[in-house]
Amino acid sequence: MIRVAIIGASGYTGVESIEIILRHPEAELTYLTALESECGHAEDVFGQLKGRCDMQIEPLDFDKLRGAADAALCCLPHKVSMEFVPKLLDAGLKVIDFSADYRLKDPRVYEKFYNVKHIDTANLARAVFGLPELFRDKIKGADLIANPGCFPTGALLAIVPLLKEGLIETDSIIVNAVTGVSGAGRNPSSKFHFPNMNENLFAYGIGTHRHMPEMEQIASEIAGSEVQMLFQPHVGPFDRGILSTVYCQPKGKVDCKKLAELYDEFYCCEQFVQICDAAPAVKDVAGTNYCHIFVTCAKGRIISFSAIDNLVKGASGQAVQNMNIIFGLEESLGLS
Amino acid sequence: MIRVAIIGASGYTGVESIEIILRHPEAELTYLTALESECGHAEDVFGQLKGRCDMQIEPLDFDKLRGAADAALCCLPHKVSMEFVPKLLDAGLKVIDFSADYRLKDPRVYEKFYNVKHIDTANLARAVFGLPELFRDKIKGADLIANPGCFPTGALLAIVPLLKEGLIETDSIIVNAVTGVSGAGRNPSSKFHFPNMNENLFAYGIGTHRHMPEMEQIASEIAGSEVQMLFQPHVGPFDRGILSTVYCQPKGKVDCKKLAELYDEFYCCEQFVQICDAAPAVKDVAGTNYCHIFVTCAKGRIISFSAIDNLVKGASGQAVQNMNIIFGLEESLGLS
Amino acid sequence: MIRVAIIGASGYTGVESIEIILRHPEAELTYLTALESECGHAEDVFGQLKGRCDMQIEPLDFDKLRGAADAALCCLPHKVSMEFVPKLLDAGLKVIDFSADYRLKDPRVYEKFYNVKHIDTANLARAVFGLPELFRDKIKGADLIANPGCFPTGALLAIVPLLKEGLIETDSIIVNAVTGVSGAGRNPSSKFHFPNMNENLFAYGIGTHRHMPEMEQIASEIAGSEVQMLFQPHVGPFDRGILSTVYCQPKGKVDCKKLAELYDEFYCCEQFVQICDAAPAVKDVAGTNYCHIFVTCAKGRIISFSAIDNLVKGASGQAVQNMNIIFGLEESLGLS
Amino acid sequence: MIRVAIIGASGYTGVESIEIILRHPEAELTYLTALESECGHAEDVFGQLKGRCDMQIEPLDFDKLRGAADAALCCLPHKVSMEFVPKLLDAGLKVIDFSADYRLKDPRVYEKFYNVKHIDTANLARAVFGLPELFRDKIKGADLIANPGCFPTGALLAIVPLLKEGLIETDSIIVNAVTGVSGAGRNPSSKFHFPNMNENLFAYGIGTHRHMPEMEQIASEIAGSEVQMLFQPHVGPFDRGILSTVYCQPKGKVDCKKLAELYDEFYCCEQFVQICDAAPAVKDVAGTNYCHIFVTCAKGRIISFSAIDNLVKGASGQAVQNMNIIFGLEESLGLS
Repeated sequence: MIRVAIIGASGYTGVESIEIILRHPEAELTYLTALESECGHAEDVFGQLKGRCDMQIEPLDFDKLRGAADAALCCLPHKVSMEFVPKLLDAGLKVIDFSADYRLKDPRVYEKFYNVKHIDTANLARAVFGLPELFRDKIKGADLIANPGCFPTGALLAIVPLLKEGLIETDSIIVNAVTGVSGAGRNPSSKFHFPNMNENLFAYGIGTHRHMPEMEQIASEIAGSEVQMLFQPHVGPFDRGILSTVYCQPKGKVDCKKLAELYDEFYCCEQFVQICDAAPAVKDVAGTNYCHIFVTCAKGRIISFSAIDNLVKGASGQAVQNMNIIFGLEESLGLS
Repeated sequence: MIRVAIIGASGYTGVESIEIILRHPEAELTYLTALESECGHAEDVFGQLKGRCDMQIEPLDFDKLRGAADAALCCLPHKVSMEFVPKLLDAGLKVIDFSADYRLKDPRVYEKFYNVKHIDTANLARAVFGLPELFRDKIKGADLIANPGCFPTGALLAIVPLLKEGLIETDSIIVNAVTGVSGAGRNPSSKFHFPNMNENLFAYGIGTHRHMPEMEQIASEIAGSEVQMLFQPHVGPFDRGILSTVYCQPKGKVDCKKLAELYDEFYCCEQFVQICDAAPAVKDVAGTNYCHIFVTCAKGRIISFSAIDNLVKGASGQAVQNMNIIFGLEESLGLS
Repeated sequence: MIRVAIIGASGYTGVESIEIILRHPEAELTYLTALESECGHAEDVFGQLKGRCDMQIEPLDFDKLRGAADAALCCLPHKVSMEFVPKLLDAGLKVIDFSADYRLKDPRVYEKFYNVKHIDTANLARAVFGLPELFRDKIKGADLIANPGCFPTGALLAIVPLLKEGLIETDSIIVNAVTGVSGAGRNPSSKFHFPNMNENLFAYGIGTHRHMPEMEQIASEIAGSEVQMLFQPHVGPFDRGILSTVYCQPKGKVDCKKLAELYDEFYCCEQFVQICDAAPAVKDVAGTNYCHIFVTCAKGRIISFSAIDNLVKGASGQAVQNMNIIFGLEESLGLS
Repeated sequence: MIRVAIIGASGYTGVESIEIILRHPEAELTYLTALESECGHAEDVFGQLKGRCDMQIEPLDFDKLRGAADAALCCLPHKVSMEFVPKLLDAGLKVIDFSADYRLKDPRVYEKFYNVKHIDTANLARAVFGLPELFRDKIKGADLIANPGCFPTGALLAIVPLLKEGLIETDSIIVNAVTGVSGAGRNPSSKFHFPNMNENLFAYGIGTHRHMPEMEQIASEIAGSEVQMLFQPHVGPFDRGILSTVYCQPKGKVDCKKLAELYDEFYCCEQFVQICDAAPAVKDVAGTNYCHIFVTCAKGRIISFSAIDNLVKGASGQAVQNMNIIFGLEESLGLS
């Protein structure tokens, strides 16, 4: 039984992680922590846990943590995370970090997009980007996983076969994505007040979204050359899910009929990536760790659509998938 | 042209009032006020007004107000309202007050339910309860209208014909109501954060809702004896509308087939009250000043259903209806 | 491993049952059937099953069924069900029937509310009403379970402690309920077309809903005398969940402070019934087999609120709970 | 008073047209028609019209129509429309046609995308594309208006200033759009059944949507050379609105800071086009005839966002705007 601590358990990715571990046959929750102001009995903090999780969410105490857990799902926000991760590693835990702090390999890029100096570059160097479909082997032996952002997960899975095969121009990729509102977190705000967000849809983060350099870094690594991606997120009136519509310029002639085949082969052994024969729907993946993809051509371009649940495959589900890999468990445990 | 000032223009009933007056053929906006922290150009405060309302929302200045408006739609919250209303009256305006401050005739009841001492009992005495279908004649000559609460509007219209005719027991009326989220106002909160409220439904204000004594006061006035009402509100995942399901115990035998006829007669000349031959739907009245009612019997009880838009017939629309009456205009101007 | 056949797998309760059995550690799907026109690969019929359920949904063939399954979750509509259930029993299966065909003990009541003659009164007599919290002992030895209706599940759990203790008048119970749209089934119709149902809320089945006699039958059995219930359903703009608000007249004086205690005791050993200290929210139980209850007093009445997921505790989850009991498994397997 | 007939009044654009004309100070409804199976009293066909529109919707009788109306808002579907429009014109009416039948100037393109032969090429030649912001002068003298499609309205308004100034490459425009569900019409279907569409989002019409050639035709006319547009529509869980996100490749260097200025000038006198300084929200334009636009640069591309209500500026509102122009009325009558 893997003993799991959830650090930063009071947000949406925290409770999603709690729910997944509660259903996991070979993992158990042993420690739940949060900021003091957000602590309390888990069932009081999250009404949906009533009768299901008789535990306190308490302020993090490293003495208590040491020896009490094998793995930490670290659901802290960026900047805060890099203050805690070194101590979690010191305490002997395998750490799966949900923040952006260990995703961007170049601290200067990090500092530019997050407006803060990186204070843990030592661990940054050894963190593994936790997208199992691409980096499973590295994940196996890792102590520290940088769990991917929700948008990069959806966008990358949609196009890595194209990048790997060199089928598309790498300077003109456009990622148009729409996320559900849970992506904005649990803190109330005017924008996401129900009477404002309901029946609404709008773009944000134009040209500046922090997931853009993350996508580009991994895409470049896969392509073997610098990839430029214009990433444009939107938010729509639903709880969960990200639909990414990725527009690519083919490099030379592309046989569109072979694209599905290429994707089928590329993802043939991947349980959580399903290649569809029509446009995917976010509702089909909501509450699951699956990514549904459809790739086709239109007007001389390749369009690849992907749908994921931002809180599952885009966060807590993928984290548990990573945890399963690290501990040598069946990768889908607790996730199907 | 009636010159209208909207006092407290930065909330949902404020902007609804603005939109109605903008479409009103014989009224015009001349002054918009709000708390300093909520001021600004109307188009910046409310994106939907862009290109439609080239006015500032500014802190209330009574010197400026005097002579600039004939009527005030006073959209302030309770307690604040009674500080301003006397001055609005002094400035010579007809005042339609949206708060609860002038609705409850007995200051002790007010003080019990609102936990604050009434400081303007003089005007309280002469305020008219602004439900035109019941009190049109008094409204005509009034300077100060207590615009009804949204729930009382829906619940009362559903049952006044029964009360007037003495057809129901007055100690066992149950009003079960579900409101859209705009009823909770414009300030963000955890409860009404989109990912919490979306796909949700729950009860609140159990046995304590402030609209209960208001319903009872008017119902008692209509019935000519004390009426007890158990009012139970709920909030559901939609923007606008209140569906009231009112359960009544018939006094003696009631001919259920004649109920619709009774309602048709009672409301025969009322444009904004429509008697339906099936259960009303909140969507049919959303954005309108209409109240749809269906009355029938089931299991020995009379059930009356009513649907209104909480922001229109339940607030701003009814206020303009009252304004039209006071100024001798056609009652439906700007509302159809 | 219990081998499970799902009869009528192409509807919402069918796919919910499939999903639950897929996660169940000691049960497996062995046969999925539907009307010929609704057959196909499970992943094509339900997009959310892609990669998760490599099975055909096929027309029911009793020869094939015999020996292939230990239990049948029979998700057929009323009337159709009683044609199939005798054959399922003959094939040696334990049958959990989702329809109303085996719920109403008096065939005359059935025939009155369902407008059809009962053709399997022999099995009707031995069917057990599958509400585990009330009838666990009978369920243990049963071959045929009449899985309760969604509304009766929510309404009954809300008030059985009161009925059992004789604390309320039995001729004046009012059940006001609001269900999500999945309760209306998978067939498209004007009423539930998205642009009509979205942002909408309305009552239906006034005085005639078929779940009313079902509630009354069980309530009467618990109370030991005839119980009259006025049941009024509504449908609101969300997928899942039923909120029941039940109004009761206390018999004599009731100590309201002791009600919660009474409920705590009554349900003390029931995992799936949670007594809350505030009004329950449908979102907290969505996707779970839990029932959240809050009981209190207001204006001289007892009000009990319950929230369930209509497709889980109100259908497929409760069916699996019953199946677990019949087969001697831990009652919550696959459900937490 | 302009007398208006609505041909095909039983759909969503029909009732939207009815509502607009009901509020129009210088137009009146004189005739409402529909297929026989969809006829009835207007208030029975559309619950929201109760008490507001005491008229029958009846089968079209040209004898009755002649002399009874000055203008026809023809809300028929494509193919049906071109059977009726010649007769409407013969009856002496000004016709604003909502279908695609008179939009595509080249009958071969029409026949390719709509799979039907054009049977009224004579009138096709003289029909004017009814986008007032571009073709106001031609509209003034027209007898027959081809009211633009909803998607082309949003997409074109977003980029015509760029096309007119020759600032963008014309072979690489990508229009990513998300529409509300009312765009799919009033007929129920599995896809738009509430429990399927709610909380959902998906793409459709990939590379084949019929609004693509319409956009390209007008864009080419504006640009003075052939324009290629990749148009990708999606549908999201809301009633009204289209958000278009248009990605363009600048031709040479573009001063991004001057784009807003360019748009302000281009649309300076257009009431219904508002240039915003941040991303527009569909909710801000819902229920209005406004188009909100924001243009900016990101990653070397120009992105222009536009939001409209698909049923108003995208259909009935624009039709009335056209009608106002034809009859020499103030263009915004009934629309503000």
